Order: sequence, then structure tokens, then C-alpha cells
Amino acid sequence: MWMYETALKWNGDATGVEQTAGRADLPFSSPPEFHGRADLWNPELLLVAAVEACMLLTALSVAQRQKIEFKSYSSKSVGRMAKTPEGLRFQEIAVAVTLTVAAGTDAAKAEQVVHTAEKYCPVSNAVKCPVTVSVTVHIA
Amino acid sequence: MWMYETALKWNGDATGVEQTAGRADLPFSSPPEFHGRADLWNPELLLVAAVEACMLLTALSVAQRQKIEFKSYSSKSVGRMAKTPEGLRFQEIAVAVTLTVAAGTDAAKAEQVVHTAEKYCPVSNAVKCPVTVSVTVHIA
Repeated sequence: MWMYETALKWNGDATGVEQTAGRADLPFSSPPEFHGRADLWNPELLLVAAVEACMLLTALSVAQRQKIEFKSYSSKSVGRMAKTPEGLRFQEIAVAVTLTVAAGTDAAKAEQVVHTAEKYCPVSNAVKCPVTVSVTVHIA
Repeated sequence: MWMYETALKWNGDATGVEQTAGRADLPFSSPPEFHGRADLWNPELLLVAAVEACMLLTALSVAQRQKIEFKSYSSKSVGRMAKTPEGLRFQEIAVAVTLTVAAGTDAAKAEQVVHTAEKYCPVSNAVKCPVTVSVTVHIA
């Protein structure tokens, strides 16, 4: 069992700070569309970032096991949230990965690394809404 | 429908950076127990922080509607992750809130604000594992 501990302080209005031992403070706010600040991370963005970051790190681990070398990896992600009769709900988190692998690597195998990562990524698996992953592979 | 967009760049090893328009870069790493750095946020911590931050902001919104004045609000949270036959899985996210409200406020009503927030918080509702909330109320 691993434990991930954070602490929060409210700074008044719709702003606060997230803290965790040894790391830089992470100030946050409501999203601007909910009376918050456009220059601070908000919980919705942090959720999307958590999924996206976990996908990379899980993919690196899968790639290592499969002896596939990543030359570069980047992604763009979007979380879509809608008003429902039960309140605001995430509908989908979509992650679009762009991957460059070493010359001679099978592009289909490289793409599959990311899809396998999605199956194992603990943050993606902690999310109720569909997490969709698309992958573009370049050969170096 | 609201959209929350992030972008990720891999920086080699188990590190990268999360970016989103107008906000400070958020460097991240795997957790130290998975070959990452202890001085950077990791996806597991970001997930817990997202839930915890969303709980505050939703509670502020509920409190405003119910005309209950928060004097201070802080919380400590922990996400528990375990190895399961399916891979690493979050088992629980527990949020312990400490709240101070104005003199003359009904403590039970103040506590209920946070529990109502948990029902409406979109990030808490986006998470599959149980999110448990405990509340300690102080009267100013």
C-alpha cells in the first residue's frame, strides 16, 4: 500500500494552496468560468494533468519492459465537463499522444505501448468517465 | 460544456512538465517509490490534490448559498494505492477538513455544508474509489 498525502489551506475568495512534503506549493483557484482566476491551476485542470502525466509514466514503464525506446513523447489532453441533473460531471478525458521512436521500431507496437499503459495507469483507472487515448507515432 | 486543456512534455527519465494556458509550468515525476523524484509533484499526489481542492471550492459555493460564513478552512488528505491483480489501483481518498465558522453558526449545519459539497464536487464525482470526508468544526 502506498500513501499520497496532501494538505490544503484556503486563502480566501475562491483560492487556496495545495502542499505536500518536499514539493513546491501549488496555488489553485476555481476555474475562471466559476468566479476563479485564469492565472492559477484549478481542480479540473489538475485532474486532467494527473491522468495525462500518469499515462506518460506508465507508458515509459511498459516501453522499458518491451524494450521499445522512446525518442520523444508529448501529449495534449482535454477534460469535458457538463451540467447534468446531478450537478457538474466530467464526461470524458481525451489524451492525444505524439510519440517518436527509434528507427527500426515497429510503429504499431509503439502505439500499443500507450494503449497498454492506459489499461494499467492507476490514475486513469481511478477515473469514472471514459478516458480515450489516441496515438501518433513518428519514426526517428 | 466546459473544456479543461493541458499539454505535457517529457523531459527524459521519469520526469515531465504539465502546461496549461496562462498558468505556471507544473513539473512532475514518478513517485520516488517508482523510481521518481521526491521533490516534484507526481500524478498520484495531483489526483489527491484535485479532489481536495475541488472539495473546498464546492464547499465555498454551498456555504454561500446557505449563507454560512467560513472564517477558515484547511484540510489534510491521503490517497491509498495498492497493488491488485489488475495493477496499481486507488483504494480510497480520505479528506479531513477543519473548518472555523462565525460565532452563532450551527456546527451541524456547517459540517453538513462539506458533506453536501462532496455530493456535488465534480472531481470527487469523477473518481471511482470511495472518497471519504470527515469534518471538524470550530466556532470562532
